[in-house]
Amino acid sequence: MAKQFGKVVVVAPDAPQSGMGHAITIGKPLRMNPVHIFGDVEAYQCSGTPVDCVKLAVDKVLHHKPDFCFSGINHGANHSVNVIYSGTMSAAMEAAIEGIPAIGFSLLDYAYDADFGLAQQVAHEMIHQISSGQIPKKGLYNVNIPNVNPKKYKGLKFCRQANAKWKENFVDRVDPHGKKYYWLTGEFQNLDKGKDTDVWALQHHYASVVPVQYDLTDYTLFKQLTGS
Amino acid sequence: MAKQFGKVVVVAPDAPQSGMGHAITIGKPLRMNPVHIFGDVEAYQCSGTPVDCVKLAVDKVLHHKPDFCFSGINHGANHSVNVIYSGTMSAAMEAAIEGIPAIGFSLLDYAYDADFGLAQQVAHEMIHQISSGQIPKKGLYNVNIPNVNPKKYKGLKFCRQANAKWKENFVDRVDPHGKKYYWLTGEFQNLDKGKDTDVWALQHHYASVVPVQYDLTDYTLFKQLTGS
Repeated sequence: MAKQFGKVVVVAPDAPQSGMGHAITIGKPLRMNPVHIFGDVEAYQCSGTPVDCVKLAVDKVLHHKPDFCFSGINHGANHSVNVIYSGTMSAAMEAAIEGIPAIGFSLLDYAYDADFGLAQQVAHEMIHQISSGQIPKKGLYNVNIPNVNPKKYKGLKFCRQANAKWKENFVDRVDPHGKKYYWLTGEFQNLDKGKDTDVWALQHHYASVVPVQYDLTDYTLFKQLTGS
Repeated sequence: MAKQFGKVVVVAPDAPQSGMGHAITIGKPLRMNPVHIFGDVEAYQCSGTPVDCVKLAVDKVLHHKPDFCFSGINHGANHSVNVIYSGTMSAAMEAAIEGIPAIGFSLLDYAYDADFGLAQQVAHEMIHQISSGQIPKKGLYNVNIPNVNPKKYKGLKFCRQANAKWKENFVDRVDPHGKKYYWLTGEFQNLDKGKDTDVWALQHHYASVVPVQYDLTDYTLFKQLTGS
């Protein structure tokens, strides 16, 4: 779909990277090799994390900064606090740190055979609105697509990140050698009743668009502490 | 040092986690075992990431939320944009998401035999000021300690996160089998001349204290997009 708007080059991890956050690979070297799975689109698989892929793409594949970085599409929600755990959004954020306009896309459907039809439509809408200046190009956007029949889809909605968390509930098991191990599981808890949040928008069949930044300073507390 | 203030329980990764960011372990189970390396302090090593350690500590070790989470101390700076790549700060952030007051500590010295004397003094100062109410307890703090002679140390300084980035410069090598691999290296670029930043404070022999939050919404752009 992105091919309609310009030349596309793909650099992607060679294995699933769920929950990889903003991890980078420091202690071991990376491999990167061309693959031919997207027809005439230049593509590479990389042994590293999503963030490594962005760094390698700029430094060793393109040798310059691209006009855009599109990250994903992710299987599963990256709304609310999930933005922090998400490899997809961390890759987009890495591009933004480099000064590259970036969008991360996620579909609220974990199924391997998920239908990406609506996601394609939403991506087209986003890129078109950015290209035409309706949405500022110089930004980082977290776009989540609801898992609904396209007929029920209501459009893009600009949102803030909902205040939510995961309530951990590790499952203990014992291996055949008598040793314990733990599987991470959790229950999503939305603590935010706001109608301007991404969680609300998705529940109401909008695609949520959260403009994202990476200055983590808590300015309210900063002002309180410095008396400024 | 923290023992002076209450009961301490340690849950730490069993291997280095540099650049692990906010990664969590989803696709494989975790191991956690008691270790006896800190005298009478209850301690566990965990096969997961720093964030996994916090989740396991709350759910499977303590079975309740502790009064504080102290993360680190990290060898090397976690000021400015490094907060995003840092496993140390991500663990502290995970605690904050759980509602636990948290501090991440980092020393600007990568040496294995680094002197932690000043770091100990700074940690004591932070915990003391929080305990006595001078610094709000309910917060998440990114504390970096300068690599200076304690006599030159000027005290704590509340800061904002400096706007900085890493300029990638991958080193290409060829393995004995003729195949290419890449080592991530980079050059730190401070783009921020502000005297209220963590980078400035550390250069001037202060310990930098940045109050941190995890709502990544870009509210300036959000307001512009929503006309609010």
